[in-house]
Amino acid sequence: MFKKIVIFGVGLIGGSIALALKKHPEAPHIVGVGRAQQSLQEALDLGLIDSAETDIASALHAADLVIIATPVAQTPAILKAIRPYLDESTIITDAGSTKSDVMAYARAELGDQVNQFVGGHPIAGAEKSGPAAAMADLYLGKNVILTPDAQTSNSALDQVSRLWQQCGAVVSHMSAQEHDSVFAAVSHLPHLLAFALVEDLAKRSNAELLFKFAASGFRDFTRIAGSHPEMWRDIALANKTALLSELRLYQQALSDMTALLEADDSRALHDLFEHASRARNDWAKSKIQ
Amino acid sequence: MFKKIVIFGVGLIGGSIALALKKHPEAPHIVGVGRAQQSLQEALDLGLIDSAETDIASALHAADLVIIATPVAQTPAILKAIRPYLDESTIITDAGSTKSDVMAYARAELGDQVNQFVGGHPIAGAEKSGPAAAMADLYLGKNVILTPDAQTSNSALDQVSRLWQQCGAVVSHMSAQEHDSVFAAVSHLPHLLAFALVEDLAKRSNAELLFKFAASGFRDFTRIAGSHPEMWRDIALANKTALLSELRLYQQALSDMTALLEADDSRALHDLFEHASRARNDWAKSKIQ
Repeated sequence: MFKKIVIFGVGLIGGSIALALKKHPEAPHIVGVGRAQQSLQEALDLGLIDSAETDIASALHAADLVIIATPVAQTPAILKAIRPYLDESTIITDAGSTKSDVMAYARAELGDQVNQFVGGHPIAGAEKSGPAAAMADLYLGKNVILTPDAQTSNSALDQVSRLWQQCGAVVSHMSAQEHDSVFAAVSHLPHLLAFALVEDLAKRSNAELLFKFAASGFRDFTRIAGSHPEMWRDIALANKTALLSELRLYQQALSDMTALLEADDSRALHDLFEHASRARNDWAKSKIQ
Repeated sequence: MFKKIVIFGVGLIGGSIALALKKHPEAPHIVGVGRAQQSLQEALDLGLIDSAETDIASALHAADLVIIATPVAQTPAILKAIRPYLDESTIITDAGSTKSDVMAYARAELGDQVNQFVGGHPIAGAEKSGPAAAMADLYLGKNVILTPDAQTSNSALDQVSRLWQQCGAVVSHMSAQEHDSVFAAVSHLPHLLAFALVEDLAKRSNAELLFKFAASGFRDFTRIAGSHPEMWRDIALANKTALLSELRLYQQALSDMTALLEADDSRALHDLFEHASRARNDWAKSKIQ
């Protein structure tokens, strides 16, 4: 397994990988790299990393894995910065929420070493962020999707798969395009729907009255509207094509439902609600571990 | 205060009123009425009610308050059934989620005794239902909305207000129309949006794949799509006018957001997400008691 791992971004995502790996008997040496000296020091103090580096050449010396766990917008600059110091055996992976854009960055920045890059997306998160939020069991039983393409080395893919399995995750492989299409539907669209609802109510003249009587259903439905604005703007733009397609399908579904209501079609409304309710509750049961 | 209260429907909503009132030193005698003998027996065994009746004349004898806590669809039949046995001092109230329809039922069924009717809606609920789910503190700190109209007796309104205050609730008054307009926005619309999303995904050929990777954001967003299909069909139809108006506004909000994404308007998307995120998080903070 890996002996020296370099993690760019030692927050919740990167820090939790580090903590999970440190539970293993032959834990790798973990180097943290970041622009915020304070976060690096915090990660050192918390024992997430064994050393901190700001110099990329030193950080990458004899590294066999680089993990990019920063906001996705930083990925191209990091790939460009590490390129001169990559051995031919160094594997690179990431943890971004969109994958077609990241695979394109890798092709653009890594040249003939793009086969050493494995795109990844751990489906795990938490309300908190930063090094102090890191948890050794964040990935336990969670899905991690890797998005190899025709150029990706099988050995690199296997090694990154094993890394995530060591963190307790369940690893799946699919194309970057399929990944982005799935997550447009089950994650990115719901986020946009929740932002749209809150904004639609918040800008009304009677917003105060509306919010006064909003209760637990509203609370859960809109929880994801409290998410990080920059992160979600970047995700929306990065996954624009798939998301626009999902928005069109959803608008059509809403129009169909509206037509049933306009027609007082009690039977069809009931059937739709019942089908959705059963699907949702079956899904929730299937997710209880 | 009330000495004899008759509750139609001794499930979560009615049963929790009974339990809350029983904590007071001069607790009223509480009679449960229902069509399901088993629920009545369960309510007796749990101590929610002091006696059970299936005969309406006996139940209403010397009753000073009737609470209708059944599904709203039963309300007109119950009003019709109790009308012959109402004293001129008996107050009637309900706990339905829509109010314009209930106020219309009261006008249609109660004739010149409609002034004794006070429409009500406690903004409280739980995942569970039935007598065993009843809790003395269900209404503690929760909003209850009463919807008097020009005919409603001030004395009846005051007494129903005090009843809810005895349950620990915070009582507000508004017109039935305003109530239905507020709840179309903050409750009924989000329910329809969640049903529509789940149904849109559940009927696709790759639904299994989509649901496999749906995670915590999806779980919270769709929790209300697991709600009772009949109840929500009835609410949607009962509050059709306000709900259609909300659906139109929301479709417009989604179209506006889609246009920003199509135009790659990074700045405007960010501002929209940030405004929504701040509004949602401020709201959540304001609700922490």
